[in-house]
Amino acid sequence: MNTKDMTTAILAAKQRAGLTWATLGDRLGLSDVFLASCCYGENTLAPEAAATLANALDLGDDVKTALCQSPLKGQSLGQSVPTDPLVYRFYEIMQVYGLTLKDVIQEKFGNGIMSAIDFSMKVERVDDPKGARVLVTLDGKFLPYKSW
Amino acid sequence: MNTKDMTTAILAAKQRAGLTWATLGDRLGLSDVFLASCCYGENTLAPEAAATLANALDLGDDVKTALCQSPLKGQSLGQSVPTDPLVYRFYEIMQVYGLTLKDVIQEKFGNGIMSAIDFSMKVERVDDPKGARVLVTLDGKFLPYKSW
Amino acid sequence: MNTKDMTTAILAAKQRAGLTWATLGDRLGLSDVFLASCCYGENTLAPEAAATLANALDLGDDVKTALCQSPLKGQSLGQSVPTDPLVYRFYEIMQVYGLTLKDVIQEKFGNGIMSAIDFSMKVERVDDPKGARVLVTLDGKFLPYKSW
Amino acid sequence: MNTKDMTTAILAAKQRAGLTWATLGDRLGLSDVFLASCCYGENTLAPEAAATLANALDLGDDVKTALCQSPLKGQSLGQSVPTDPLVYRFYEIMQVYGLTLKDVIQEKFGNGIMSAIDFSMKVERVDDPKGARVLVTLDGKFLPYKSW
Amino acid sequence: MNTKDMTTAILAAKQRAGLTWATLGDRLGLSDVFLASCCYGENTLAPEAAATLANALDLGDDVKTALCQSPLKGQSLGQSVPTDPLVYRFYEIMQVYGLTLKDVIQEKFGNGIMSAIDFSMKVERVDDPKGARVLVTLDGKFLPYKSW
Amino acid sequence: MNTKDMTTAILAAKQRAGLTWATLGDRLGLSDVFLASCCYGENTLAPEAAATLANALDLGDDVKTALCQSPLKGQSLGQSVPTDPLVYRFYEIMQVYGLTLKDVIQEKFGNGIMSAIDFSMKVERVDDPKGARVLVTLDGKFLPYKSW
Amino acid sequence: MNTKDMTTAILAAKQRAGLTWATLGDRLGLSDVFLASCCYGENTLAPEAAATLANALDLGDDVKTALCQSPLKGQSLGQSVPTDPLVYRFYEIMQVYGLTLKDVIQEKFGNGIMSAIDFSMKVERVDDPKGARVLVTLDGKFLPYKSW
Amino acid sequence: MNTKDMTTAILAAKQRAGLTWATLGDRLGLSDVFLASCCYGENTLAPEAAATLANALDLGDDVKTALCQSPLKGQSLGQSVPTDPLVYRFYEIMQVYGLTLKDVIQEKFGNGIMSAIDFSMKVERVDDPKGARVLVTLDGKFLPYKSW
Amino acid sequence: MNTKDMTTAILAAKQRAGLTWATLGDRLGLSDVFLASCCYGENTLAPEAAATLANALDLGDDVKTALCQSPLKGQSLGQSVPTDPLVYRFYEIMQVYGLTLKDVIQEKFGNGIMSAIDFSMKVERVDDPKGARVLVTLDGKFLPYKSW
Amino acid sequence: MNTKDMTTAILAAKQRAGLTWATLGDRLGLSDVFLASCCYGENTLAPEAAATLANALDLGDDVKTALCQSPLKGQSLGQSVPTDPLVYRFYEIMQVYGLTLKDVIQEKFGNGIMSAIDFSMKVERVDDPKGARVLVTLDGKFLPYKSW
Repeated sequence: MNTKDMTTAILAAKQRAGLTWATLGDRLGLSDVFLASCCYGENTLAPEAAATLANALDLGDDVKTALCQSPLKGQSLGQSVPTDPLVYRFYEIMQVYGLTLKDVIQEKFGNGIMSAIDFSMKVERVDDPKGARVLVTLDGKFLPYKSW
Repeated sequence: MNTKDMTTAILAAKQRAGLTWATLGDRLGLSDVFLASCCYGENTLAPEAAATLANALDLGDDVKTALCQSPLKGQSLGQSVPTDPLVYRFYEIMQVYGLTLKDVIQEKFGNGIMSAIDFSMKVERVDDPKGARVLVTLDGKFLPYKSW
Repeated sequence: MNTKDMTTAILAAKQRAGLTWATLGDRLGLSDVFLASCCYGENTLAPEAAATLANALDLGDDVKTALCQSPLKGQSLGQSVPTDPLVYRFYEIMQVYGLTLKDVIQEKFGNGIMSAIDFSMKVERVDDPKGARVLVTLDGKFLPYKSW
Repeated sequence: MNTKDMTTAILAAKQRAGLTWATLGDRLGLSDVFLASCCYGENTLAPEAAATLANALDLGDDVKTALCQSPLKGQSLGQSVPTDPLVYRFYEIMQVYGLTLKDVIQEKFGNGIMSAIDFSMKVERVDDPKGARVLVTLDGKFLPYKSW
Repeated sequence: MNTKDMTTAILAAKQRAGLTWATLGDRLGLSDVFLASCCYGENTLAPEAAATLANALDLGDDVKTALCQSPLKGQSLGQSVPTDPLVYRFYEIMQVYGLTLKDVIQEKFGNGIMSAIDFSMKVERVDDPKGARVLVTLDGKFLPYKSW
Repeated sequence: MNTKDMTTAILAAKQRAGLTWATLGDRLGLSDVFLASCCYGENTLAPEAAATLANALDLGDDVKTALCQSPLKGQSLGQSVPTDPLVYRFYEIMQVYGLTLKDVIQEKFGNGIMSAIDFSMKVERVDDPKGARVLVTLDGKFLPYKSW
Repeated sequence: MNTKDMTTAILAAKQRAGLTWATLGDRLGLSDVFLASCCYGENTLAPEAAATLANALDLGDDVKTALCQSPLKGQSLGQSVPTDPLVYRFYEIMQVYGLTLKDVIQEKFGNGIMSAIDFSMKVERVDDPKGARVLVTLDGKFLPYKSW
Repeated sequence: MNTKDMTTAILAAKQRAGLTWATLGDRLGLSDVFLASCCYGENTLAPEAAATLANALDLGDDVKTALCQSPLKGQSLGQSVPTDPLVYRFYEIMQVYGLTLKDVIQEKFGNGIMSAIDFSMKVERVDDPKGARVLVTLDGKFLPYKSW
Repeated sequence: MNTKDMTTAILAAKQRAGLTWATLGDRLGLSDVFLASCCYGENTLAPEAAATLANALDLGDDVKTALCQSPLKGQSLGQSVPTDPLVYRFYEIMQVYGLTLKDVIQEKFGNGIMSAIDFSMKVERVDDPKGARVLVTLDGKFLPYKSW
Repeated sequence: MNTKDMTTAILAAKQRAGLTWATLGDRLGLSDVFLASCCYGENTLAPEAAATLANALDLGDDVKTALCQSPLKGQSLGQSVPTDPLVYRFYEIMQVYGLTLKDVIQEKFGNGIMSAIDFSMKVERVDDPKGARVLVTLDGKFLPYKSW
């Protein structure tokens, strides 16, 4: 079973079951963001987690197996500049604030980068009389450049 | 004075003065991220803030004027896919987690997007025995799609 | 049912039924533009509207469900520079008048943008002895940039 | 004098003079949008209008001459997908609503396009308790396809 | 029936029938160029013409219907820079003579463009002892730019 | 003297002298289109023609020399998809009618192409009560494919 | 039968029959290079040659017909910059020696080009103690630019 | 002295001296093609050859030094798809005959490539009553793929 | 059987059999890297090796045949800039260290390149208390540029 | 002093001084590869190392300062697909062996990547009767993906 079919099967089953990523993540002891990324074929589940998920959504062994494979990442979007407005805004933030991020991070940490591998991400809702706000927290290990 | 020259002048003066974005931001009552983004020509300073900054860095009226102009944004990087490893990691996060972000945000908020305009961003350092971590918090207003 | 199949099914049924977007929009209390954009998979219908539409066009539950899903937007065209002359003219207007729009909007509103989310659009026909004219009105909330 | 220098000279003089496109347009009997587009090198002024403008902004004959030349259009932005958020939103509208516009325009007019040459555009501010709104009206002649 | 299938069906039937675009065009009172462009899904036939053509080629109602739909144009080639030598030569002419065409047309007509909508095209063969020559005549309405 | 400077010098001198491509072409016994293409650095003038032109426009030996050099063609536009509306329409014709041209030309001539080297082009104005029309005639030798 | 299927069928039959392009070319009185290019859908065979080839490879009428159609050229590779090392080396030669070829050819022939239509190509093996060498000979008619 | 300036200086001096690549190559014991490629900054001359050339063209030490540096290759053209017709024809040959070359070369040599490094190239003129022909011979070592 | 299907079949069989590239390579007397590259359709196996592999994985003759065909290389990734983080890091190394590699290699070897054809590659694991390290060794023949 | 000027100054001084990266690296206690990458503006030197280098090459304070700045990486090449044959071969290796590297690395290490930040690289010359070989060793920390 390829990644695309796996994603389609999971999204359909999740909708039928009326479950959210948050609820499913709680059952697996995983965050909603990480779990969703596995189901979009961008991360890998451990075998037991895959089994629990397949069970919760009443899906077969092919889905379970596909969830444990090491995916070729960055394929789900299929566009180097995204067209979906929600996704594009993250591209725009990178374009507009890229040099700023480089400069401020290096001011605080020295020469290096924020890892996107030793990394987690969180999405929170903050209600506010002027309109709810989306809080996205990126948490990556600082990796200093080395000389040799 | 064009944006590139303004940025060059400010970065050189800031280095001479031995000041950080954080210190300068404190003097202007602005965050380091926002201030840096203005100096990279990606946001606009109010006239008094521009005057205070030019003063602190001993820069002339041309810099002050340039800081108040409404910039053409997204130009500082000059690449649709960034090559710098630090900046690229943010592009990679968008590529790898784009669909995940769309799905999780819409699960928590309904149909809509996170604004990149009614928006702020914060960079924090979290020390840890296993190595310092970079915490980047994106805080944008949720904008629901409307029907008409 | 994926978006493409949904669009194909609706367009075929609409042609068979001999109905226009305007007529269908009236039945749903929605504008022709918004309704068409939902059927091209670029916006989402509320469940009752989807049911009414499926009914009017004698289409099944799969279409109804598909119309309520949150689509990945900007996918229907599939080209970063459009080749169709009608669509290209809108691209051309953006290319030719982009800086002008930025300058004139910011002169009238201050530093910020026109939202494409809190947004509606209208297409009107103005008859004229020298030839009919197309009037497209874009109506988006002004979102001021904030400092922080 | 090339187009870029002409634009720079005019924008600087306009800022010094503290004049708006609207005021300047009134003096020339032209809309603010059209006048701005000429100054960004995307449209051509008639000789008398160019003279009046150069006079109002205290600029020389080289600017006056440059304003009357037939420009190579679509060059001012210099990007096939714009990065500036304000300009990008117009690109996004074209991407998201391109097929919709084609379908609705052709439903109302038959087979053809909206001209971007026999064309004018207007930007208006509509104040509103929930926040000002930007109204952009595109007004182009309908050009029917012909058979032969 | 989508455009690609329509084109395939027509080309196969035309080959079986041993008919040329010229012969078929004569029966429909249309030029060979216009007729071929309709069959490649780049223009639209009137219902009677579509019926006559389907009849001449012994094709069904699905082809007839498809020929009357308003196609998304510029899709048949599927390349922004064409690789076929015959088609590329037209791209090359545009690249090599683009500025020349702009200058000479505007010298003869003033500021404006040649329409590609109110437009027809003709291909002729001129025999010559040194080798036959291809004569392609483009005939488009001049559209002057307007000020407003 | 490089090509860009040559073009700038000629266009400025031509404007000062108030001469057209047609007038200048007549003096050199060349068509306006060919002469303009030489001045845009896309074709080469014979030495005597270059001398006559330099004389007519009161330009120096550097321009004369530059006009005789074999230029790197297709550089004057500098864009693979042109943004100028007049030039774009020729690109659009190639996109929309590319397959049609291939089919109709090969129907009339057999397997081969229209040369863009053994080639000339003509621009004519046809006045008409409904608006003037631009007639562009492309005249290229047919080159048959050979087998070997 | 489309081009891709034709190529697949021929390659499989040729492998089954254990024949080379050279042997097959000899039977048809054609060079191996030309014959292979026809089978990759980049050139056209005459009807008798197509019949002989189909016969030799025990293939049906659909292949025979497909071999005689005028193909859309340059499609077989499907990449504007090739990734296969063998093919890339030819791209590299064009990139590295492009200006050199232009200059040396024009020094020997005057202003013009080497035709890729009135053209043939030959691949030879030259054995050598230091390792065999590939000799590729391109033989194209010189086409002089003309003035008009 | 950078590569571009070196090339400009050499081409101008060569034109002043009225010398050809062939004549100059003879003096250096090098082919015209190789010598021209060095002067376009795509290959490197040995120090004595550089001195002889600089002498022959009456050029200074900066040119001599620049000719001996190891250039970053493939930069002289500056386009991934060339626009100049002469250069484009070589790109077209690669596009149209790429798979053919791969297949025929591998049929004659086994699995491997033609080197573009252990490589030479020759341009010859063949006169012919039907028009002169350009013969370009590419001569590269065959490099077999290895397994390991 | 095309390359994609061959790869899919092998990967599935390898997973079922619970075998590694290292184990399989040992049986065939080939390195894990080379063997894997053959199975991804980027290199070719000798017939006996293909038979042994097909046997070990219980796969049919179609796989065996496909493994012996000379593949069109560089197709498996399908992206000019890879999105998968593991693969991208190799792209990043090329971007960041490209000029450095050129300079250091040419300092040690003179003017020339490292072959990617007469080439092998090895991946090793080095354990370390601070975390395991990946050692990738590229071993290519030096090919000197020649003059001619 | 910007990066480009810094690189030019260092390369010229190094050539004048007749020093190699290896010799200079020895004086600074750094490898030739790392030192060269700093001089191409792709890594940062510590202040003392920068002072030692500037001293060794008789360069001023501006170079010393520039060497210590945190560069925007990946800019020196300026091409997403490199044209220089030496650099391109590394791109080719990434294209041809990308999936292989992913699979073999993950087989040996589990799910994760090789870091390009906690990374060093070495270039060695191995002499051999059949021709010298280039050995490039990439040594990066393995970074496992984490779940959260």
